[in-house]
Amino acid sequence: MTTADTPAPKEAITAALLVIGDKILSGRTKDQNIGYVAEYLTALGMHLAEVRVVGNEETAIVDAVNALRHRYTYVLTTGGIGPTHDDITADSVAKAFGVPIDTDPRALAILHEWLKATGAEMNEARLRMTRIPKGADLILNKVSGAPGFWIGNVIVMAGVPSIMQAMLDEVSPKLETGIRMLSETVRADAREGDIGTQLAEIAKANPEVAISSQPFFNPQHGANTNVVLRARDAQKLALAKRAVEDMLERVRGAQSSGG
Amino acid sequence: MTTADTPAPKEAITAALLVIGDKILSGRTKDQNIGYVAEYLTALGMHLAEVRVVGNEETAIVDAVNALRHRYTYVLTTGGIGPTHDDITADSVAKAFGVPIDTDPRALAILHEWLKATGAEMNEARLRMTRIPKGADLILNKVSGAPGFWIGNVIVMAGVPSIMQAMLDEVSPKLETGIRMLSETVRADAREGDIGTQLAEIAKANPEVAISSQPFFNPQHGANTNVVLRARDAQKLALAKRAVEDMLERVRGAQSSGG
Repeated sequence: MTTADTPAPKEAITAALLVIGDKILSGRTKDQNIGYVAEYLTALGMHLAEVRVVGNEETAIVDAVNALRHRYTYVLTTGGIGPTHDDITADSVAKAFGVPIDTDPRALAILHEWLKATGAEMNEARLRMTRIPKGADLILNKVSGAPGFWIGNVIVMAGVPSIMQAMLDEVSPKLETGIRMLSETVRADAREGDIGTQLAEIAKANPEVAISSQPFFNPQHGANTNVVLRARDAQKLALAKRAVEDMLERVRGAQSSGG
Repeated sequence: MTTADTPAPKEAITAALLVIGDKILSGRTKDQNIGYVAEYLTALGMHLAEVRVVGNEETAIVDAVNALRHRYTYVLTTGGIGPTHDDITADSVAKAFGVPIDTDPRALAILHEWLKATGAEMNEARLRMTRIPKGADLILNKVSGAPGFWIGNVIVMAGVPSIMQAMLDEVSPKLETGIRMLSETVRADAREGDIGTQLAEIAKANPEVAISSQPFFNPQHGANTNVVLRARDAQKLALAKRAVEDMLERVRGAQSSGG
């Protein structure tokens, strides 16, 4: 491989996810978006650095949007853009950016199309969904009549998983992405507590490889552990993986011979 | 009912949940604790006001613990108290409180018991799990050898759901709880967008009842909505529920006769 084949290292692309929903905080609705977005962004080579869940309260949303948008490359939000009185995400994001918000003619046209197709009626509640902060781009979706939007580095999406996923597909080609994170998983056949010390040494010797362990239990074979290695550089990942495998062989050898 | 039967109104008891885990943020592990804790605290009459997910990074944990513990009655944390090098929650919480941390003789005794019972060996990694901030109370659990702990208003628990749940059961009788939130669900048999305006009016007229709506789709009957009402006062809840039912009757009547 020539060096020309290797992409120049880029600054890590970071993201935060802000989940907006009283229903999540009361436990009535179980969030399905955090895991989905986490996996999706990781696959794009982005680092999801933080998630917050707040209720449908203006101050909480404004504070969270402003705290996160200055700290990360992107902020994705889910929830609070429907037709009811507690759907205040669009207004709160406008407030966070200090821009006006009003009925958007593009969003209104989309809603009219949708009403025609479904036979539903226009009313004040539905009109609410066409409120878009000034300067925002719309995020279309084929599932519902209400678009999401993108303002600054903040991407505002619906909370219903199928609609959120459609919006994420729509917006992701326009996102700046990082170098894809590669990963390897090694089954330890050892208890987490039996390899923690050695893993710490390997992690120290391989600073560009993130090493973590996940204990799991199998009724047949008992306590076991998966060691997960993640890195942007394939060679460094391979070296660290070899170090883990060698260590595991030594640990298992000592256990079977000694006790 | 005499007024003596009515408990004196208390300040709302609030809580935040801090989930600590690189694995959640990378999407490799799907969180199961947020929904469980949300439902659990709601049942106790506590208001889960905020959730944050951060990685296994000292600064992120310290900042989040300090931001949350000054704002809410309780902060619950999950994750990062295992035997590996990235399990830094105990040290980070000690740092947030500005207290020293060292091997705790009570935690050490528990670990020794557990080692005896399971036949596992003492080593540096397992010894890590006995590090407890000075002044903290232990949270025992019957599932694993490593206790959680409680310092100030911060409750530190394991990330593995079964262990976290055991710790929550252990600690919950000691928590100050609020007046239980009552709730009612009314199936609207109408689209969310058709009742949003009316629900907003009812919400305005019933300020002590939290009213939200959840759209759902049934292949047989199409788009539908559940209206959820929550309040601490049974009478106020009943009044608001009646208002919602009356409104729904009017809406459905208008739809079947007119449009």
